[in-house]
This record gives sequence, structure tokens and C-alpha cells, in this order.
Amino acid sequence: MSVPVFTARHVEHAVSPDRAVDAVRDAFIAHARGEWTMPPKVYVTNYPAGDFRAMPALGAGHALLKWVTSFPGNPVHGLPTVTGVVLVSDAQNGQLRAVLDAASVTALRTGAAAVLAAETLGRADAQTAAVIGAGVNGRAVVRTFLARGRPVSVWDVNESRAREVAQELHAEVAPSLADALAADLVVTVTPGHDVVIGDRTLFEGQHVSLMGADGPGKAEMSGAELARARLFCDEWEQASHGGELAHAVEAGLVTEEDVTTIGRVLTGDAPGRESDADITAFDSTGLAIQDLAIALAALEAAQGLPDLPRLEL
Amino acid sequence: MSVPVFTARHVEHAVSPDRAVDAVRDAFIAHARGEWTMPPKVYVTNYPAGDFRAMPALGAGHALLKWVTSFPGNPVHGLPTVTGVVLVSDAQNGQLRAVLDAASVTALRTGAAAVLAAETLGRADAQTAAVIGAGVNGRAVVRTFLARGRPVSVWDVNESRAREVAQELHAEVAPSLADALAADLVVTVTPGHDVVIGDRTLFEGQHVSLMGADGPGKAEMSGAELARARLFCDEWEQASHGGELAHAVEAGLVTEEDVTTIGRVLTGDAPGRESDADITAFDSTGLAIQDLAIALAALEAAQGLPDLPRLEL
Repeated sequence: MSVPVFTARHVEHAVSPDRAVDAVRDAFIAHARGEWTMPPKVYVTNYPAGDFRAMPALGAGHALLKWVTSFPGNPVHGLPTVTGVVLVSDAQNGQLRAVLDAASVTALRTGAAAVLAAETLGRADAQTAAVIGAGVNGRAVVRTFLARGRPVSVWDVNESRAREVAQELHAEVAPSLADALAADLVVTVTPGHDVVIGDRTLFEGQHVSLMGADGPGKAEMSGAELARARLFCDEWEQASHGGELAHAVEAGLVTEEDVTTIGRVLTGDAPGRESDADITAFDSTGLAIQDLAIALAALEAAQGLPDLPRLEL
Repeated sequence: MSVPVFTARHVEHAVSPDRAVDAVRDAFIAHARGEWTMPPKVYVTNYPAGDFRAMPALGAGHALLKWVTSFPGNPVHGLPTVTGVVLVSDAQNGQLRAVLDAASVTALRTGAAAVLAAETLGRADAQTAAVIGAGVNGRAVVRTFLARGRPVSVWDVNESRAREVAQELHAEVAPSLADALAADLVVTVTPGHDVVIGDRTLFEGQHVSLMGADGPGKAEMSGAELARARLFCDEWEQASHGGELAHAVEAGLVTEEDVTTIGRVLTGDAPGRESDADITAFDSTGLAIQDLAIALAALEAAQGLPDLPRLEL
């Protein structure tokens, strides 16, 4: 058995941010239609150090397994928080088809989902975009906004980190958090330990994509502020248990009827934004079907990458 | 990131069947003591073609994920039923440490568990051993018995397959199924579609390791024959839901109190065989902690294998 290996560099070469947005849109739609499926992800926990997630998905004749970590204390030791591999297999005979770097696939699909939600749910006349949090995934969101032709500013609690990303990608640094929070399209990509969007922060008509809070106890937006917004998510099970909405769901303030999955908006089965005055909020928890979409896009591009390493097993 | 890759050949070179028995014994003990843990495995099903299993485990400072298939129709097309990869990561920082061929790890640990159970639960004066089923995992059981210095015969519904394995490993072919079933130590490694051990087949004092039935609806031993035996398993949850015992459990004939996990026998916390007249039956469903044990044994031996390929990510 010999399969192509996509390192981080190869993933970035194989799949442009534009292609990633299209791929993730198709994945959300296929999932909403029941064509692509996902068994629940499994956590292997070794707290306080961190955890591993085994994320399976099935779609387009392929089965995917992402084995990916979250070790928040790693950067202090010069190691990445998120690391791991994506395995793609043929669903008809089980044969492995590709191995991909998990962090770069995760960054691409996170950037794609954030921008896709902003484009889908934001006002048609939205001009400005801001990204709060300039880590690996924040950088990916900035890169995706720029690839879509939209000017974007970036802010981070660590100013030099924001400056580095802005310089590398030719974006702007937001003068302050308040400035970033005033953009038409706001994306938060923080660790989720602190609420970034407090009560009465947002203006009518704004959209926010909440990408950071992906586990129990994490939140980027206050409950009262969520209550002002029309709510959307990637998947109800994940969002209601480990996502941004979990607190509000536990408190009985939000039920499944209050939250629309973005896939149903994209298929036209559910309304998205209904008025220019709406505040729209998209809670992203990150789905294995998004990873599958990126992995298949990379495989499609493999022929154009003659220098791909291979795994011989 | 650069990690060693153990192909099937490297797994077999790195871990002898003897070493595998020791490693699997340690794993069963560590699991019984709660030191090694396993979240439930996840199935990604694409029936009738086959399924994928994501099997996680945590122990000895490492996290493991096995992504392995069962596509029973594959051999007709020249492809293996079982294929996939084992990923081993550092549990303290999440970094990937090794990639291994899943089929060979599975075969080694299956052979080790079958023989370990036979040695632990069989009569002290047991002489003869027989393996029923000469596929990849049956071959591994034959190889392990021989490595432990025990003569073994092999039988398969496909006679030429049994002969091939016997010739390759210098074992005997059992003249008939009845002869194989009369051995002191019997191991069944069949697909589990048909009952191999029917009512009133076994003699007092025999031991049988049931390795084949690992999914709903599968069985290698009849319910009435199970009722004659003292019952052991690798893990109650898996064995009672998808293993050999599932039918008897559903029918209310067997409860958790009737079945002893082998780890508790190995730690001395529960009795094994209590009389020379006992028939003992071990239901193996296959645990990710066994895979972890083999993977860590391979990693230990990596320094002695200078030609190990590497995965660069």
C-alpha cells in the first residue's frame, strides 16, 4: 500500500481558501441532506495536559478519521496546540487513500466555515470584516477573507501576534478590540476562556462567527448577547453540548427550535438573515465532514503536486 | 514532525510472538487495575461492503488510535479484509510518535490473546493445541503457539489454506474438524457466520479461545455449549454487545456475574479454572489496549531497526 502524504505545505498548495469555501459549502449541504454522515467524535482525555479527538465521517465514497489534539499548554514549550493526522479511506473497500496534516486541514476548514457563515448570514451590503484572535486558525480566517476579496483587520490580546499575521498576509491590525467588534462581519477565534463579546456589544445588522468555543465551559459571547441574536450553528448535537450555546441550552434559554443549522440555510430549507436589523450569530464547533471536504479537495489536486511524499505500508 | 513507520514486515521483526504475549498480558493487567483505559470504539458503517472502526486507548503515557476495517468481500478482489493504520501519540503533549500497519498489529495481538488465554485457563497438563481457521489471524495464533514451544495443528474449511499455513510455519494439518475440536486447547478464528462448536462437542477439561465472533449476529459456539463452560472474556461491554456471548446475554442466559474478565484472573483478583473437569471458554472481542501494548513494544524495538521508513509531516 502506498498513499500520498499531504504535509501542511502540501495542504496549503493543494487547496486554496476559495476552493475550501466551496468544499465546505458542499459538505454542509450534503450533511443537511443526509448524504454525508458523522458518528459522534470520541475524546481521549489526559487532563490537565490536553485531549485527543477521533473524528469520523462518511461521504462521497470515502471514510475519514481525524486524530487531532488540543494541548493548550504546548506553545509555551514550542509545540503546537493542535496536531495530528487525517486519514482518508475508500468506503467501498476500506483501502487507505491519503494521509494529511491535521492542523492545516483544520485551519483551512475553520477559515472556510467562518467566512462562509459571514457571507451567508451577514448583510448583503456588509463592508468591513474583523478577526479577533491571531493564532493558527485566526490566521486562516484572515487569509480566507482576503482570498474572497474582502479587506479585513485582525486583533489579538497579544499585539505582536496580530501584527505578524497582518504583515504576512497584508491585512490591517485593528486599533482596538472595540474597533474590531464594530466591523460588519466579526469572527472570534479565541481559546474561549474569556467572553469577548459582552452584553450590549453588537450593533443591529452585524454578523458574528464564533469559532473558538469548542468544549465544555468555553464561551466567546455572553448569554444576554446571544439572546439578542438570531442563532445558527454547524450541528445541533455538538453545539448544544460542547459549544458556544451549551450554557444557554443548559439554562433552558435556548432550545433546538431557536437555532438553525447553516446547512439548512444553504439548501434553502430554512431562512437565514431576515432583516437588515438582525444580529446573526454562527456557532461553529467544527465538523469532521468539513475535514472530509478539504481532504477530498486535496486528493483531487494530488496530480498537480508531483513532489507529494508517500507513505508505504 | 518525523515519525517511524512500521510496515507489516517491520511489526513482525520488531515484536516476536513471545514478546507479544508478555505485552498483551501486561495490558490486560493494567486495564483490570484501571491504569490503562479505553473509550468505546466507534463504527463507521458502509454495509454491505464493510465497516471502519476507530479504536482509542490510553496507557503508559501514550494515546492510541487504530483505524481499521472489516470488508469481508475483499479477498475475492485480491484485497485484505482487515486493513488500516495504528497511530501512537505522546499523551503528555499530543505529538505523534509512530504509525504502524494495523493488520499485522491486530494479528499479533490476536495470536497473543488466544494463546495467553489458553495458557492461563487451560489445564496445566494440556498437551495438544488446535487452531480452527487459517486466515491472517489464525496463522498468527499458530505462530504464537509454536513460539511458546507447543505443537499445534490447524484446520480450515478451505483445506489448501490450512496446508499453506502448516507448511509455512512447520505445523500439522488436523485430519478433520472433529480432530481439531478434540485438542486440549482449541482456538477458533473463523468469520463467525457458522457455529463451529455445536452442542455436546467439548470434553471435560478442554479450553477454547473464541477469537472470531466480533460483531452482532456472529457466533462460533452454540448457546447450549456455552452453558456447559466457565466463561471468560476480554471486556464485558464489548463481549456482551457484539461478541460471542451477545446472544446468550440477550436471551437472559448469561449475566455479567457469570463471566470473568481475563485481566482479573491475571491479577489474581478472580479465579480462573477451578477443576480439571472444567470446560473453559474465553470470548475475545479485541481491545485497543492490546494494540497499544503491541505498538509500544514495537516502539521499544525501533532502535534495533535502522531501516524503518519515516513519515514526515
